[in-house]
Amino acid sequence: PKMKLPGQEEFEVSSACKNVPTGELDSSPGSGPSPDGPLNTKRGDLGVSKDPLLFIQLNELLGWPQALEWRETGRWVLFEEKVEVGAGRWSVPHVPTLALSSLQKLHSLLAEGLVLLDCPAQSFLELVEQVTRVESLSPELRGQLQALLLQRPQHLIQPTGTRPCQGSAHPREASYNEEALLKEQRQNPLRQKLPPGAEAAAVLAGELGFLVQPLGAFVRLRDPVVLGPLMEVPLPSRFFCLLLGPSTVGKGYHEIGRAMAVLLSDSQFQWTVRRASNLHDLLAALDAFLEEVTVLPPGLWDPTTRIAPPKCLPSQHKRLFSQLREVKGPPAPPGALAEDRHGHWLRTPSPELQRTGRLFGGLLQDVRRKASWYPSDFLDALHPQCLSAVLCIYLATVTNAITFGGLLGEATSGAQGVLESFLGTAAAGATFCLMAGQPLTILSSTGPVLVFERLLFSFSRDYSLDYLPFRLWVGIWVATFCLALVATEASVLVRYFTRFTEEGFCALISLIFIYDAVGKMLSLTSAYPIQSPGSPAYGCFCQYPDPGGNESQWTRTEPKDRDDISSMDLGLVNASLLPPIECARRGGHPRGPNCHTVPDIAFFSLLLFLTSFLLATALKHVKTSRFFPSVVRKVLGDFSSVLAMLLGCGLDSFLGLATPKLTVPSEFKPTLPGRGWLVSPFGTNPWWLSVAAALPALLLSILIFMDQQITAVILNRAEYKLRKGAGFHLDLFCVALLMLLTSVLGLPWYVSATVISLAHMDSLRRERRTCALGEPCSFLGIREQRLTGLVVFILTGTSIFLAPVLKFIPMPVLYGIFLYMGVAAMSSTQFTKRVQLLLMPAKHQPDLLLLRHVSLSRVHLFTAIQLACLGLLWIIKSTPAAIIFPLTLLGLVGVRKALERVFSPQELLWLDELMPEKERSIPEKGLEPKYSLGGDSEHSELMYQPKAPEINISVN
Amino acid sequence: PKMKLPGQEEFEVSSACKNVPTGELDSSPGSGPSPDGPLNTKRGDLGVSKDPLLFIQLNELLGWPQALEWRETGRWVLFEEKVEVGAGRWSVPHVPTLALSSLQKLHSLLAEGLVLLDCPAQSFLELVEQVTRVESLSPELRGQLQALLLQRPQHLIQPTGTRPCQGSAHPREASYNEEALLKEQRQNPLRQKLPPGAEAAAVLAGELGFLVQPLGAFVRLRDPVVLGPLMEVPLPSRFFCLLLGPSTVGKGYHEIGRAMAVLLSDSQFQWTVRRASNLHDLLAALDAFLEEVTVLPPGLWDPTTRIAPPKCLPSQHKRLFSQLREVKGPPAPPGALAEDRHGHWLRTPSPELQRTGRLFGGLLQDVRRKASWYPSDFLDALHPQCLSAVLCIYLATVTNAITFGGLLGEATSGAQGVLESFLGTAAAGATFCLMAGQPLTILSSTGPVLVFERLLFSFSRDYSLDYLPFRLWVGIWVATFCLALVATEASVLVRYFTRFTEEGFCALISLIFIYDAVGKMLSLTSAYPIQSPGSPAYGCFCQYPDPGGNESQWTRTEPKDRDDISSMDLGLVNASLLPPIECARRGGHPRGPNCHTVPDIAFFSLLLFLTSFLLATALKHVKTSRFFPSVVRKVLGDFSSVLAMLLGCGLDSFLGLATPKLTVPSEFKPTLPGRGWLVSPFGTNPWWLSVAAALPALLLSILIFMDQQITAVILNRAEYKLRKGAGFHLDLFCVALLMLLTSVLGLPWYVSATVISLAHMDSLRRERRTCALGEPCSFLGIREQRLTGLVVFILTGTSIFLAPVLKFIPMPVLYGIFLYMGVAAMSSTQFTKRVQLLLMPAKHQPDLLLLRHVSLSRVHLFTAIQLACLGLLWIIKSTPAAIIFPLTLLGLVGVRKALERVFSPQELLWLDELMPEKERSIPEKGLEPKYSLGGDSEHSELMYQPKAPEINISVN
Repeated sequence: PKMKLPGQEEFEVSSACKNVPTGELDSSPGSGPSPDGPLNTKRGDLGVSKDPLLFIQLNELLGWPQALEWRETGRWVLFEEKVEVGAGRWSVPHVPTLALSSLQKLHSLLAEGLVLLDCPAQSFLELVEQVTRVESLSPELRGQLQALLLQRPQHLIQPTGTRPCQGSAHPREASYNEEALLKEQRQNPLRQKLPPGAEAAAVLAGELGFLVQPLGAFVRLRDPVVLGPLMEVPLPSRFFCLLLGPSTVGKGYHEIGRAMAVLLSDSQFQWTVRRASNLHDLLAALDAFLEEVTVLPPGLWDPTTRIAPPKCLPSQHKRLFSQLREVKGPPAPPGALAEDRHGHWLRTPSPELQRTGRLFGGLLQDVRRKASWYPSDFLDALHPQCLSAVLCIYLATVTNAITFGGLLGEATSGAQGVLESFLGTAAAGATFCLMAGQPLTILSSTGPVLVFERLLFSFSRDYSLDYLPFRLWVGIWVATFCLALVATEASVLVRYFTRFTEEGFCALISLIFIYDAVGKMLSLTSAYPIQSPGSPAYGCFCQYPDPGGNESQWTRTEPKDRDDISSMDLGLVNASLLPPIECARRGGHPRGPNCHTVPDIAFFSLLLFLTSFLLATALKHVKTSRFFPSVVRKVLGDFSSVLAMLLGCGLDSFLGLATPKLTVPSEFKPTLPGRGWLVSPFGTNPWWLSVAAALPALLLSILIFMDQQITAVILNRAEYKLRKGAGFHLDLFCVALLMLLTSVLGLPWYVSATVISLAHMDSLRRERRTCALGEPCSFLGIREQRLTGLVVFILTGTSIFLAPVLKFIPMPVLYGIFLYMGVAAMSSTQFTKRVQLLLMPAKHQPDLLLLRHVSLSRVHLFTAIQLACLGLLWIIKSTPAAIIFPLTLLGLVGVRKALERVFSPQELLWLDELMPEKERSIPEKGLEPKYSLGGDSEHSELMYQPKAPEINISVN
Repeated sequence: PKMKLPGQEEFEVSSACKNVPTGELDSSPGSGPSPDGPLNTKRGDLGVSKDPLLFIQLNELLGWPQALEWRETGRWVLFEEKVEVGAGRWSVPHVPTLALSSLQKLHSLLAEGLVLLDCPAQSFLELVEQVTRVESLSPELRGQLQALLLQRPQHLIQPTGTRPCQGSAHPREASYNEEALLKEQRQNPLRQKLPPGAEAAAVLAGELGFLVQPLGAFVRLRDPVVLGPLMEVPLPSRFFCLLLGPSTVGKGYHEIGRAMAVLLSDSQFQWTVRRASNLHDLLAALDAFLEEVTVLPPGLWDPTTRIAPPKCLPSQHKRLFSQLREVKGPPAPPGALAEDRHGHWLRTPSPELQRTGRLFGGLLQDVRRKASWYPSDFLDALHPQCLSAVLCIYLATVTNAITFGGLLGEATSGAQGVLESFLGTAAAGATFCLMAGQPLTILSSTGPVLVFERLLFSFSRDYSLDYLPFRLWVGIWVATFCLALVATEASVLVRYFTRFTEEGFCALISLIFIYDAVGKMLSLTSAYPIQSPGSPAYGCFCQYPDPGGNESQWTRTEPKDRDDISSMDLGLVNASLLPPIECARRGGHPRGPNCHTVPDIAFFSLLLFLTSFLLATALKHVKTSRFFPSVVRKVLGDFSSVLAMLLGCGLDSFLGLATPKLTVPSEFKPTLPGRGWLVSPFGTNPWWLSVAAALPALLLSILIFMDQQITAVILNRAEYKLRKGAGFHLDLFCVALLMLLTSVLGLPWYVSATVISLAHMDSLRRERRTCALGEPCSFLGIREQRLTGLVVFILTGTSIFLAPVLKFIPMPVLYGIFLYMGVAAMSSTQFTKRVQLLLMPAKHQPDLLLLRHVSLSRVHLFTAIQLACLGLLWIIKSTPAAIIFPLTLLGLVGVRKALERVFSPQELLWLDELMPEKERSIPEKGLEPKYSLGGDSEHSELMYQPKAPEINISVN
């Protein structure tokens, strides 16, 4: 039976935190038919009803006996906020902790008190009259009590603040105050954070000396009523609870009031109490709450500690599930759990990854699916959020284009350059955004392709080939192969790319980035040598030719050996100390060993390199720091590399040293002199090379396929809640076509770039606005559309005319940004975390779930194998066989397969993921260890752990 | 009545965390006579008895019905450690969380079960027979049960591990196994962590299908018995608890067993159950536990979350106190609480700070007090820990001596230098260690004195005074003034130095350090200019005189204007490109504008500067990171500045550039050429200067007094649990004498250095060894003695001969270390934290106690006033009136006094501390806000917050 659960809608957060798709619970063998306890039956038949959010306020009666006054001392939506009396502010939202005794006292107070369910009162006055109609009160006391209840309470937000205006808020007397109050209530910033339709609950508690016995009343109003000045926000109140009594010791009524408020803030209690028909139901709900509470021992826990809201709320499914289990018996078999951990799509592949068995069947399906969304892909973009997304992604794209353009220009001796990078990015990106299956993807030059391009270039240089024509044929072949892959629906194989493969890929590329950045930086120090004091020759001066232009005097005394350079008699006649450039301008000749060295450049470059690296890293961290308003933090964090680059350029131009700069063509023509926009198909190459190019093309195809699809898998993960589906085949098809286009034009090759695409999605998150009071903002999905990407790439295209600005960027700054990218990508993998574990004593290791389930030696073994694979890949990359490295990457899948002989499926489940066929075999074998001790809690850990994107694979 | 409380001895930690001195509770008006409930009476008469530590182990029966086996699944001393079955390791220690229902089930199981108190069983076998003597069991079942109980359980530590050796551990059968087991038990690393005399408690729980009704048994053994293979460590067991029953759903018996174990780990439950005489007492203890538990609501807390052990355990005093209050009535008045917060000595000054009213009365008292400890001051040093303390402090002292020596040498143009610094540190430090009142203090040059010395030097240079003789007279006067301060017992005034003063002092000095370090670094760039490409002149060459020695040819064509330098015809005949030094050696003359610039030095120095600063900072953080074993972390953290300095030197000598180096004399003679060791009393100064020197001496005396006494106050804080008392007067007396000595010899002046002295104390901490299982190590006190300091300074003295090594230290490295010191001292103050608050949006501010009690605008106002004071001090320091800055520091005390008109005492109590007279006035006025809502919890926060040394004042 399909079951809707209480609190399912209110707790968007909790469903964001787990990845059991809604409605999945009933298909797992554990749940079965709903139990027949009265409470559960009620819950079971809830159907589509959705309860409004409840805002709870605790007003306390203070100052007995001298100066009685009501004062708001706490409020709850989910977490507790307390009034800090001294500081006059709200505390940070925190998990409320209660004393067991106050819950028990509350129980007896309710049991002996007045319970009015569906009370028809229409105003606060009527309500007060109903509530005070208690036998134990004499008429006189009743009047006193009524007056007291109608007294206007002090709220923290009141600007008048300190002085209580006793009784002035009585509705019939103080119309002026009434107005002021309403204005205040409306201006309360809290109001904006509560969704429309929210209801309120008022808890009034305190010590009232003239009562002889405690007075408890719980009222559920038939129709919610705005209770005038009682609440700090003008919400209609559904519940009203009065907890008064004679003087007691300690904080009795304060704590009982808090207990009531916490109870009301519990979604299941709320659900029941909204439907309770008598006192018994109410008390049963309290008992059900008590059944589920977690207890902390007094000797180890200071109750005054404030517990920060957990990142992930316990799922309401889980609470019900555990209750069901209590009644039903054995826990769900582990098969269902493995499924849960991996999200839904891996087990029963999502439609995008199901093989149709027809040629181009997947592509056709993708096109058909996407076509239906096409108009909405533009209409959905009409939201101001898209503007900021465009700005953010545009800057990142331009940075990328500059950086990769600079590197590609160097790697290919100018066959590609910054201009090509801008042009290609714009053209390929815009086309992709218009046509692709997943238009949120941002195309970019990526690390792996850059590495391959460099290898291809050195190969063709070594064999004296004409690079661009050769590259054209490689591109043609790659496009062909990729189309073949599309035709055969090869994209469904991505399910064999487990984390092991992803991380091996990512780690190798990151390492290459780091190695290259540092290596290029160090090569600058040989280009600009440091003058050590012991160097034999020194100085430079400018020699002018004889008036007759005769230089024989100088050439006559050429040095005979090394020592001579310094001690020879130069016999100069006309000389000056002009700097070399100036000397040449005036017709002289710079002479001397130091004429071509520029001092200070090496160290200054190193400084620029370190500055941009450290600054980018530091700015990235600003995003999660406590400083600055969130807007500033977001800007600093998102634009960290842009800002670091700008600062580096500023520093460089401030000192005005002759650091090596980015080479940018000043005209709109290919960077390589003397070539047109179209690459000639043969150039100086022999004809058979166009066939032989198929070999490197095969390798590149593997690379492109892996790079593109790993990224696509990450972007289409279930936790992003995409509505319009993925398009793995269509994406690859687009990439193939673009390969062809860029090869013909001699532009760089493009595939999906993970990090920047994730940033794109992140800037388009749809969130519920009302995320007040400690609750993490609830994530509703992504604004899926094609327009933002399109605009970004159009802007990038127009940025070609930035050339006059770009030529001020020093190369060391770019190297620094590259180091940052490599380090950032490297440190985002679980692999890095496991390598760090090698350095940590077991005592200090973080309490990773992984370590709870796999023995440390096995974890280390797995890490060691990964390290060994990485070492092997590195060695292959460094040998002349480097060009086959895409093949060795594919070999990682094979190694991963072989690991199934070394590690048990349980271990692999935690260390990696399972491959499709293994996954199918699990329900039979059983995943859990022999003894299921504490098994239940393990299950629940496994089941409801947050599944954040754990890996940022591509380095861009 | 004096009350000893249960658990007082076991919970050393908790008393380290608060600062209510033991036995202080009863003098506060709140507690009063002990209440007369039966439980409390028992607790009250505990007297000196001390219960042994209890180790609790949970063995679970698993595998029903196929393969029954006992397996250890959890253990407790204070926190819970759980067996991670998959990983085969112990979980991190964590605060156990229980379900309320399991506690209730345990209650009924115990109530209906067998309770044997003071059971006389002498062996496990006897115990098993006693426990199974239950009516409900048939003889057959009893036999089965007995066999099952005697089965050897699986412990996690067993090397054989996976396979159970069923029944083999039966005592009469398996003597071989017995031996192996004993060996195993003894080798268990846990054993070393438990103190001698510890006892064990075994909880056996599980599901046993053949039972028809649950079987609960709780046994307290009369004499603790080693229960053979039952426990993982061979401790005698005092308690034995059996919780078996027929199959239930879920984790029933696992959770009930955990509940029992957690109960037993609670100190108050333990205390009661050790003394319980019947079932009723046992159940009452369980109810008392339940009374005090903290409850977390189910919707907001996932029970599978593991809570890390809190830094500070709730005090057992507090638990009792809150119980007392429940019975007794109103909470203690706030006066007592203010006292608690500040530790004991501020309110009723410790004997060291009480005025005797006689001349030198305080000094005499100090001498008398210290004399009695004198022999023990040497005997107490006989501990290996002192060796490592010596090494650590020696290195820090040498680093300090080098750094300050280098800076002093620069500040005084060589009047003092590194040699003087070593000599003075050794002489003054050793003397102080032998004579002082607080021999744990390490004397050092400190920032404030350095600043003053620099001011004094520039003053005497500006007025062409002979520095050292002038300084001698200043020293003589300072010694005189200080002796007068000793005579008048002025040290008792330190109670007026509140945090406001301390922080103003510290912040100014830190700022000066930071400013100087950066300024000196930048001044290097003008000494070694960077060659920009636009500079008109360039190069350098070497000119040899004519064979006849005639240089007229060169001198004839001297430049007429700036432009000429570059374009003139030099008309050289004999020239070469030798470097300047080489050129001069060969008899030539280096000519040209670039002959005296050294390239690359400026940027390389900057790199060295940044490297040493960042490295020192990073290494300091290693101490609190998760990486490396704790020994390595400690070494890296403690020696961060030494290591950073070494690395800087290594880098410098690796590149071999001509960076400016530390100037060290190669002979044992004063750095300033031509002076003897004794400073002549007048030199070239007029005689009246010896009188006039009294004026700067007055200022310096204020400075010395503040620097010395603020440090002394910090070192003698109550939380260090010093037994031998302080000696404020004696310390100042020693400092005065040493001022005289160092002035006569022309050595630097010395006062106590906070940071290094704190490091000294830290390296001499006495801790209880057995701090296993998540409990923070309990701090017993400091090894107070004179020997470590003495040895350190003797070693420092012999390090004078390090000169050949010291001359390799580049100055930029020293500047980097200084920057690090300034930044570290600056960031350790609460002031810095409050300045940071200015940059944080209220939402993201940390949950500081301060912010709970003082409104944000008032906090910001206080910070702004402090900033303004700091700005004013900085301005004064930068004007010609700089030399009076000690006076302005004293002015801070006045400003603080004036703040009492702006802020309420409550606010000042949180933002600062209270001054003596205000403090006296508080009990009358009352500190709490008008309404005491939630007051109780505030009190307890106030009372039991950890009071760590919050400020590291002196920058050394």
